[in-house]
Amino acid sequence: MAKRVTGPEIEKLIQLLAKVPGLGPRSARRAALHLVKKKDQLLGPLAKAMGEAHDRVRICSQCGNIDTSDPCAVCTDDRRDHGVIIVVEDVSDLWALERAGALNAAYHVLGGTLSPLDGVGPDDLNVKGLVARVTGGGVREVIIAVNATVEGQTTAHYITDQLSGLDVKITRLAHGVPVGGELDYLDEGTLSAALRARTAF
Amino acid sequence: MAKRVTGPEIEKLIQLLAKVPGLGPRSARRAALHLVKKKDQLLGPLAKAMGEAHDRVRICSQCGNIDTSDPCAVCTDDRRDHGVIIVVEDVSDLWALERAGALNAAYHVLGGTLSPLDGVGPDDLNVKGLVARVTGGGVREVIIAVNATVEGQTTAHYITDQLSGLDVKITRLAHGVPVGGELDYLDEGTLSAALRARTAF
Repeated sequence: MAKRVTGPEIEKLIQLLAKVPGLGPRSARRAALHLVKKKDQLLGPLAKAMGEAHDRVRICSQCGNIDTSDPCAVCTDDRRDHGVIIVVEDVSDLWALERAGALNAAYHVLGGTLSPLDGVGPDDLNVKGLVARVTGGGVREVIIAVNATVEGQTTAHYITDQLSGLDVKITRLAHGVPVGGELDYLDEGTLSAALRARTAF
Repeated sequence: MAKRVTGPEIEKLIQLLAKVPGLGPRSARRAALHLVKKKDQLLGPLAKAMGEAHDRVRICSQCGNIDTSDPCAVCTDDRRDHGVIIVVEDVSDLWALERAGALNAAYHVLGGTLSPLDGVGPDDLNVKGLVARVTGGGVREVIIAVNATVEGQTTAHYITDQLSGLDVKITRLAHGVPVGGELDYLDEGTLSAALRARTAF
């Protein structure tokens, strides 16, 4: 804004909100106005929640999940089968798989994928931690649930290499037609994979 | 989420972020993860900025603008012509007009438009404050800059009624072709208005 029309505290709030993914400069202004209007219902509680999250958030030293306790809620959950570890790229993938709720297993967050172009090498990923967990014993299966991208598949191969020789079954997610998906809109790679992996009706 | 996979503080943060305009449940989760990952660069400063905005934000008792001082930065700005008052529906309109920066005037925020269907009557808008400012003297012109909607125009007529008899010039925003707009995409009402209000080349 050319001239000052509001307080520096509100300008600062708009600037910071614009850095939140999903909000740009324009929607940050709209969000700030809404927050300020809902001062006691939304702005106050949100400030408090952010402060608490900031003070208490931890990265789980075992699996890499984000929680306010370490080890995290997943790693300390007795009702899970800790003999099965699902390897994911990011915490958001862990959360997505948990929403699906298909498997009651443990997780391991890599923190990215191998990507030489972006300068991400093996040491930048938490693969050593995974090898240590498997070496530690009690793990029967490692499910590699990385994205079906080139980087993801390269990472999957690297992990398989690192785990080779250890007494553990290594599996990966099935390729196929997404549930609710229309064949017409799918790429040839997915269709070929779905045909090859066809199951009895 | 079916089972607890992260801390209650982070769940709470996601819930509240989902109420911010521009973010939904899905993007709130993404935003929360990003904030938590950028704990010290973004989450901490944002929590602080929100806390400060919450504690210090005021509605200007004169014009209805949002600021951390009352009267606000606009009302106390000596370089403005306080003899001209631009009447807007919402603070966001005030900010939008200020970004345009075309007129160095004072403002008056109504806080909405007359809308019997939504139960918004004359007493819900800050029209009395406007009449008081004009009656107080020193105001030469009131520019009605409400939205070009049915409710906006009804409100404009109501304000004109309330100000009638007072020694003040009442004007409104021009209708016409938006700058950069293509005729082909404009409605007939706008085109007719633009033709009627044609100016010398």
